[in-house]
Amino acid sequence: MIPSDALPIVSPEALGKFAPDPAEALIGLSVNDPRVPTPSFLIEDGKLEKNLERARARARELGVAFRPHLKTHKSIVIARRQMTSPEGPATVSTLSEARYFAANGVRDLIYAVGIAPQKLAEVARIRSLGVDLKIILDSEEAAKAVSDFCREHQTEIPVLLEVDVDGHRSGLPPECDELIDAAKALQGGAKLAGVLTHAGDSYECKTIEAIEAAAEGERAGIVQAAGRLRAAGFEVPIVSVGSSPTLMHSKSEAGVTEIRAGVCALFDLFMTNLGVCESEDIAGSVLATVIGRQTKKNQLILDSGFLAMSRDRGTSRQKRDFGYGLVCDALGTPLDGGRIILTGTNQEHGILTLPADSACRLDDFPLGTRLRILPNHACPTAAPYKYMLLVKNGIIIDVLEHVRGWD
Amino acid sequence: MIPSDALPIVSPEALGKFAPDPAEALIGLSVNDPRVPTPSFLIEDGKLEKNLERARARARELGVAFRPHLKTHKSIVIARRQMTSPEGPATVSTLSEARYFAANGVRDLIYAVGIAPQKLAEVARIRSLGVDLKIILDSEEAAKAVSDFCREHQTEIPVLLEVDVDGHRSGLPPECDELIDAAKALQGGAKLAGVLTHAGDSYECKTIEAIEAAAEGERAGIVQAAGRLRAAGFEVPIVSVGSSPTLMHSKSEAGVTEIRAGVCALFDLFMTNLGVCESEDIAGSVLATVIGRQTKKNQLILDSGFLAMSRDRGTSRQKRDFGYGLVCDALGTPLDGGRIILTGTNQEHGILTLPADSACRLDDFPLGTRLRILPNHACPTAAPYKYMLLVKNGIIIDVLEHVRGWD
Repeated sequence: MIPSDALPIVSPEALGKFAPDPAEALIGLSVNDPRVPTPSFLIEDGKLEKNLERARARARELGVAFRPHLKTHKSIVIARRQMTSPEGPATVSTLSEARYFAANGVRDLIYAVGIAPQKLAEVARIRSLGVDLKIILDSEEAAKAVSDFCREHQTEIPVLLEVDVDGHRSGLPPECDELIDAAKALQGGAKLAGVLTHAGDSYECKTIEAIEAAAEGERAGIVQAAGRLRAAGFEVPIVSVGSSPTLMHSKSEAGVTEIRAGVCALFDLFMTNLGVCESEDIAGSVLATVIGRQTKKNQLILDSGFLAMSRDRGTSRQKRDFGYGLVCDALGTPLDGGRIILTGTNQEHGILTLPADSACRLDDFPLGTRLRILPNHACPTAAPYKYMLLVKNGIIIDVLEHVRGWD
Repeated sequence: MIPSDALPIVSPEALGKFAPDPAEALIGLSVNDPRVPTPSFLIEDGKLEKNLERARARARELGVAFRPHLKTHKSIVIARRQMTSPEGPATVSTLSEARYFAANGVRDLIYAVGIAPQKLAEVARIRSLGVDLKIILDSEEAAKAVSDFCREHQTEIPVLLEVDVDGHRSGLPPECDELIDAAKALQGGAKLAGVLTHAGDSYECKTIEAIEAAAEGERAGIVQAAGRLRAAGFEVPIVSVGSSPTLMHSKSEAGVTEIRAGVCALFDLFMTNLGVCESEDIAGSVLATVIGRQTKKNQLILDSGFLAMSRDRGTSRQKRDFGYGLVCDALGTPLDGGRIILTGTNQEHGILTLPADSACRLDDFPLGTRLRILPNHACPTAAPYKYMLLVKNGIIIDVLEHVRGWD
């Protein structure tokens, strides 16, 4: 071990000297320009816009408010294009997202992960800065904790009760006694703002009919929960549902006030397998470079490893397993009619194995060739990048900062 | 879509107002203090020190230099405790790591991912700032590209030829003609600095004997490659091998000059399954909070989802499948004798299913209980955090910044 008094002193000058060029210098460059670093996360502007409008149009057709979940991209520029007003409504998955979007003018937020008592002080602080940040919980125990906190700190925090409509993860069943008990426990401190559910099991559907049924189950369950609370004398202003598959295929949201959805802003291969989108709709991708070749194994080595692609292998349990992603040329056209996938990853290495009967050959890809990989799952793939590059016709038109991590 | 001229103007004041407290304020707090956010990535100081010393001791025993791979933690504070001098040697997996460690005084670096021609300008820039950054490649085509670049820019870049000893991923077989051709192609521009290999297939070994054999295969292959190059008239100053399993179990590194290893600084459940460490040696973990409970399913919901844990499921193909991680109490003792694992994850939700016959019961974990989860794979788990918390006896003693992403 090196004693700490032997450490060299690092000056801000040293740090500055080694810093890369500002990312804004990338605007106007082609994705094939050597100055564009790889791996980079790209978003196709036209596809993004089409996806955003499709989601909003679905909410309009269903006659409910649209509260997009911002966790997929975590970018204020995209959020502003996605939300129905610059102030929201919107949904977040972390308090760091809440802080970031609030600092950028979003005023109507639901933090849609069950609250831990220790996070209430930060929720109250964000609320004190003029943001209507609402929280969710799914037990009488949590409701009491929030109510106690509010009384102790002489503040009021609006709470949605999380309802479980499909046994997916968290929430109280709509028919259970604890739903009413939790609402009662909120009284005298916190404020019941509504009910919320997420039909997470819609991600496991095999047919569109099954997604339609999941949407109806989501609607019926939340409406039942709201009805029971109202019958018990509670006001339930917000009745919130949502998942990308059910938003896309719901036939009615009668009794619902708002719908949430996240991944449908970018879509991904998992959603393609579900039948919710086509691969041409996928707006997010990873730009990568060929860095090696293994002739005997008919493999290319790329600089898109598992940090760049994520370890998500969700498509392995679906009708088509896309490995670590579908490989396209730099402009986004799938190679060999969509037959080429990233077959393996290490931390900073991606492995592309050409099928023996592929129309592509290793010689088609000299070192330095740029490729674009469509991800299994947009959310974990976009998450580690410092910025995302908005692209139109192969040219970078904007550099989008976004939230990373939990700080 | 909201027209861009309707956007609210965000002031630096707004951003500052919403910022969380500086992370340094966490120093001195207990991991059970509500002010310590969850999820957080913790590193146990004592275990880290033991692991670092064990790796250095192995290199000393083997009589070779130790060039730690910094990609696991990406932190200069840990690097300084790990390296044999503040200037290195060390290994990095991205140019962003190279910049960061160079800015912090590390002068002897290998960027151990096959070089793409487009990255040479940045390599040359970093070298021009006084850093001996070496690169690797595994083809005559790449060697020519580097040589051409060096001639054109009147600079010299030291290159190690990557050798494939086990068919794991990339590299040239030690016996192939292209190894000599690549060395020849470097002449007149670049500079041959040595040969390098990584026995990546040691991660698939089922017994310690198999790891010992992998280590000997790694050594024999790289020595053969160096010997053939020397016989062809080339100087080969660096003969570099390494992987954490082979470092731990190599019996001889005769003919090798240096050994690299990364994950053995922190270890993880994958390494435990390999037999390379015990679960008590695992220094990195995720601090999480209980945020919900599903009584019928005997499940707790935590705030450690797949962004916090990573989607890495490497242990699913090993002797024990740890799900998304092994669950411990907040101080790091595995619950129920090591029987409790994180069984599922969504983006910000972790699901812990208690076995029916567990000694633990849901009531033992009120909302807000803090738990610590040992990860399958340290590298992707640590990667997304802005900082890592160094912990001793349950108290945070330092906040470690590190590199994230590729910028």
